[in-house]
Amino acid sequence: MALDSECIFCKIIREEIPCFKVYEDEHTLSFLDINPIAPGHALVIPKFHTPNIYEAPPEWLAHTMATVGRVARAVEASVSPGGINILQANGAGAAQSVFHIHFHVIPREADDGLTMNWDLVSGDMDAIATLAQTISRRAEAN
Amino acid sequence: MALDSECIFCKIIREEIPCFKVYEDEHTLSFLDINPIAPGHALVIPKFHTPNIYEAPPEWLAHTMATVGRVARAVEASVSPGGINILQANGAGAAQSVFHIHFHVIPREADDGLTMNWDLVSGDMDAIATLAQTISRRAEAN
Repeated sequence: MALDSECIFCKIIREEIPCFKVYEDEHTLSFLDINPIAPGHALVIPKFHTPNIYEAPPEWLAHTMATVGRVARAVEASVSPGGINILQANGAGAAQSVFHIHFHVIPREADDGLTMNWDLVSGDMDAIATLAQTISRRAEAN
Repeated sequence: MALDSECIFCKIIREEIPCFKVYEDEHTLSFLDINPIAPGHALVIPKFHTPNIYEAPPEWLAHTMATVGRVARAVEASVSPGGINILQANGAGAAQSVFHIHFHVIPREADDGLTMNWDLVSGDMDAIATLAQTISRRAEAN
């Protein structure tokens, strides 16, 4: 692990900041977004500080995407959305706000009108905690 | 390669249908979207027919994401956008229309108002062809 002392996601990896964890392995961590744009909105990050897809080493992308697939299956089974988008942002022009590469797993409905940028609005922490437990059980099993 | 006889992306891989190629290697292919939502909008696909991220084998995700990183760097250098989003859709509720897993590389500007679903509108084929040559040279070099 090569982590950054000031990065908020590195602090979550080091457990200096709590998260609603849904999956963790040697190389990756996944947790629910506390500003969800849909119930089950999750993030997947590598345990390696790299800002974006331009700089991410292929082996870390490989680890991260294996977990993205696992978490997507668990979110799909847990919230039964119409579909799921995987979204990853690079640069302020793409609304990237944390400069540690992360993949959003976003449950979708065809008519939800979601945009590629969104305002951050805090979710219901009790509901997020309960959903994290459900998704976590499925992510461990699949 | 395990391809599907009826899939449009498998037909592009087999060169039965042409494309504006920007990169190809043993395991992956990348080409410009003919219905771009921004100049330089590219797709990256594995040379393996699998419908979505739920079913994609991790090794094929690894190959595909290495090419996504390479193509993102080439698009970024070629069109100098404000940022780039990587977007991947699973299921009709996420507006997936071709059921061969594919990653969109989408140049962004903070105020472009892009949505996660969009109407397909044909681009200027001459402009796409010219841009494909520019991006291709950079993708080969990086």
